[in-house]
Amino acid sequence: MEEALIEAKRAFSEGEVPVGAVVVFQNEIVARAHNCVESARDASMHAELLCLKKAAERFGKWRLTEMTLYSTLEPCSMCAGALFAFRIKRLVWGAADLRQGADGSWVSILSTPHPIHALEITRGVLAEQSSYLLRSFFQKRRLENVGANI
Amino acid sequence: MEEALIEAKRAFSEGEVPVGAVVVFQNEIVARAHNCVESARDASMHAELLCLKKAAERFGKWRLTEMTLYSTLEPCSMCAGALFAFRIKRLVWGAADLRQGADGSWVSILSTPHPIHALEITRGVLAEQSSYLLRSFFQKRRLENVGANI
Repeated sequence: MEEALIEAKRAFSEGEVPVGAVVVFQNEIVARAHNCVESARDASMHAELLCLKKAAERFGKWRLTEMTLYSTLEPCSMCAGALFAFRIKRLVWGAADLRQGADGSWVSILSTPHPIHALEITRGVLAEQSSYLLRSFFQKRRLENVGANI
Repeated sequence: MEEALIEAKRAFSEGEVPVGAVVVFQNEIVARAHNCVESARDASMHAELLCLKKAAERFGKWRLTEMTLYSTLEPCSMCAGALFAFRIKRLVWGAADLRQGADGSWVSILSTPHPIHALEITRGVLAEQSSYLLRSFFQKRRLENVGANI
């Protein structure tokens, strides 16, 4: 999760909402990504989905059944659905996303039994560090907006 | 929806689960795609998500607030989440996906009020044509598997 936080800090420094993710296979990081929706002008470029795509590309297969995804944020419904689609074994997430989280905050997809795939989940790992980054990002953006309107 | 069905037939002929999608803006098709999970070895290459990405690329923006997505199948949770992420105005879908559909069949994300975006939905358009394609695909695949095991 510390490596996922490094990715989130990269997003922050690029002016993107600071979310990072890594995929781990056999105790090794095999893919890493951070949110880049704004720079890519593509709403699907969330850290989690991007990281899953990178892992699939690296291994040349779309079933990631022995891998774990670490994300600094509770996944949204798109990324939660992607975790099922890619058959990821385990998800570890950091801070809750109270507005759009799909693991209990907005909807509860991840704890709904899926017809094809079962997922192990660990929640709240390094949550405070992740929340601090997110709060700082949105505070900074609000202050910039104030600055722009003076 | 007829154009989305043409895309689904393309998927069928390529050995992919036959699902197609188009994005319409001002009465014009601005993006089209079909499922290509197997050929791309990427579980996120569903027709709907791919089509949203293509529309965003074409217009150089990730908010598709005036556009409509037509899909031959009820979206899965990943694609349902993507419709919110891309702020699509309206969704029109064909056949229900009784196993993984996220608009009432498995879960009901799309009818759950979203904290940021509201979506108009029309269901069941040319559903029988879409279902026929899907049934034919899975029947063909089962028969091929039988053939391989003789």
